Amino acid sequence: MSVTFAQGFSAAGVSAGISAVEGKKDLALVVNDGPLDVAAGVFTPNRFCAAPVQWSRKVVADGHLKAVILNSGGANACTGAAGYQQSVDTAEKVASLLGTEAQSIAVCSTGLIGELLPLDRVLAGAEAAFAALDDGEQAGADASHAIMTTDTKPKTVELEGTGYRIGGMVKGSGMIAPQLATMLCVITTDADVTPELAREALSAGTSVTFNRIDVDGCQSTNDTVLLLASGASGVKADPEEFKALVAKACASLARQIIGDGEGASHDIRITVTGAASEDAALACGRAVAASNLLKCAISGNDPNWGRIVSSLGTVPPDVAPYDAEQVTVDVNGVRICEHGGAGRDRSEVDMTPREVHIDIDLNAGDAEATVWTDDLTHEYVHINADYES
Amino acid sequence: MSVTFAQGFSAAGVSAGISAVEGKKDLALVVNDGPLDVAAGVFTPNRFCAAPVQWSRKVVADGHLKAVILNSGGANACTGAAGYQQSVDTAEKVASLLGTEAQSIAVCSTGLIGELLPLDRVLAGAEAAFAALDDGEQAGADASHAIMTTDTKPKTVELEGTGYRIGGMVKGSGMIAPQLATMLCVITTDADVTPELAREALSAGTSVTFNRIDVDGCQSTNDTVLLLASGASGVKADPEEFKALVAKACASLARQIIGDGEGASHDIRITVTGAASEDAALACGRAVAASNLLKCAISGNDPNWGRIVSSLGTVPPDVAPYDAEQVTVDVNGVRICEHGGAGRDRSEVDMTPREVHIDIDLNAGDAEATVWTDDLTHEYVHINADYES
Repeated sequence: MSVTFAQGFSAAGVSAGISAVEGKKDLALVVNDGPLDVAAGVFTPNRFCAAPVQWSRKVVADGHLKAVILNSGGANACTGAAGYQQSVDTAEKVASLLGTEAQSIAVCSTGLIGELLPLDRVLAGAEAAFAALDDGEQAGADASHAIMTTDTKPKTVELEGTGYRIGGMVKGSGMIAPQLATMLCVITTDADVTPELAREALSAGTSVTFNRIDVDGCQSTNDTVLLLASGASGVKADPEEFKALVAKACASLARQIIGDGEGASHDIRITVTGAASEDAALACGRAVAASNLLKCAISGNDPNWGRIVSSLGTVPPDVAPYDAEQVTVDVNGVRICEHGGAGRDRSEVDMTPREVHIDIDLNAGDAEATVWTDDLTHEYVHINADYES
Repeated sequence: MSVTFAQGFSAAGVSAGISAVEGKKDLALVVNDGPLDVAAGVFTPNRFCAAPVQWSRKVVADGHLKAVILNSGGANACTGAAGYQQSVDTAEKVASLLGTEAQSIAVCSTGLIGELLPLDRVLAGAEAAFAALDDGEQAGADASHAIMTTDTKPKTVELEGTGYRIGGMVKGSGMIAPQLATMLCVITTDADVTPELAREALSAGTSVTFNRIDVDGCQSTNDTVLLLASGASGVKADPEEFKALVAKACASLARQIIGDGEGASHDIRITVTGAASEDAALACGRAVAASNLLKCAISGNDPNWGRIVSSLGTVPPDVAPYDAEQVTVDVNGVRICEHGGAGRDRSEVDMTPREVHIDIDLNAGDAEATVWTDDLTHEYVHINADYES
């Protein structure tokens, strides 16, 4: 279903020969058939952002998009003026097929950094995708497959609002850091919303979801999240409900990224409570989520709380005031660290579930935040030592 | 030789039964036999710093120490008041053996966080070490072995100044982050120096060495670097020469830590030039050194410059102003990234040497900085998934 779950959208996913994997679907097209063409986007803050990010950030700025074309098999990042021209050419091709202007077409790319795309294949693929456009379930599924790289499964979401729908797809498995942990994501809705509401909902939704997951602390050059609204349901969405649903869609997709993190054998939820502020809680959660040593311990089924508190200890006091001797840590419900020291025995913790819950109470206030990460495994190293090298 | 290379020092390394490894030397004693007892120390900024760090930071504050006792096999970190009392008891034991006060004895511990030490064994070990004290080569070597944990080899240094000597030992292999990447280090000298010069030389020396290496981005609770001066040479050191030599000793020991980084198959030197300031160069170097993706690529002998520039791209412009399109990257002398895009082909880079040189020119100024890191291997994960779990 994915992006075609919402009315007013057609999609396609085709094999264009861009990916090094023979026959893999590697080009997706998502078209907003209207009546509205409202859109919003958030993008990587990376200073080496890719050509398609530079292009898409510009064209979505006015709050409108007619379509998005996405490819795997090449990031078109660090490719200079020639790379930028490839994004422009791609947008122009899609625009001519749809009878609109290039300014209405967003472009997303993912794959190896530093190489130009095989543009002829992208343009031929755009024609094939255009010919395959359909608003059915299979078309949405095809699109969600076409954006996968090291992902082992497609990641999609479908939600029902009051009289309208939200659908979405995301790709992402490695190079996932909290700002902005996504790679590529397209969320569609048939609700009738203004560009302002779309922007507000997407910004708020990503800040507590995609910005709070961390597979490997590595920020991508290509991260893009787009929200497209067709208005095809004819229903004006209640702003609060709509924002809540967009956040829920983002949360579902972010959780699926963690569930498919490169080589991961455990999904780790880190919740920090008792913080002086949400920012303090978030800083502590992110510090713990970034610890390679902890992530290795978890992969070895070791609830090593020493590696949790030593990570907490790196957060400056002005960012997160707390007293080390008041901190408690529970892993999977067992309080193995109390008053900043040893609590119940680590052997009491059941580490067999894939999901591991780390609950940290700073006992320094009422604010809290949750971040997600993955464990660090042999398989992660294997994937990233050998990826298209 | 290690710490006994300088005159006026005796040392010992004994097996006290603290380590889980049967028969491993796990307790070291370094005594300053004078005539001076000048000392300086730098310590981890971690807020969960260990009991021995709390003790040693206090007693070295006056610029004088008579001896240092160090143990592997347990960090005595996050052990509360009971742990602190263990450090006090240990210092008092050594003081009584040497006929001095506990305030003259520094204590260092390394090993698993969160467990108390077997104090009876530590105290009995102190007696054995005291009995074994010697100023010869073997005694220094024994001490350098006794502080090893996941280290695969002892790390020592010996340098000659104008009429005086500097010796040193360090342990450290994992949980090595730039602030302060050391674990435990003792540097000795027979130069006649003031506490002020000792402090200044140690602070300056560590800032450009131990603070610029990064094995895994994980900061320890126990990091301690101590400098002890006996004055036994009778030579008043020239301040500039002395500072330069202490920095050289720190650099040698820091380089040895990188050479023995957990599971490492490549030692990676990252030099950032053309920066607007040294801080800017350092921030860029550290960002690259912290990239798990790059470190995996290097372990796979892949000079993946996309992962270098995507890490550079995370450094905020106010910290390091540069134009992405002016950045060049050389790996082992081959310019594989030019104008922020692809340069010469990656296949031209010879990745067979253990040492990998990454030279980044920001073309934004005249400042530079060098940081060292290791690659990220299967073996690192293996060591840290299974470490005393």
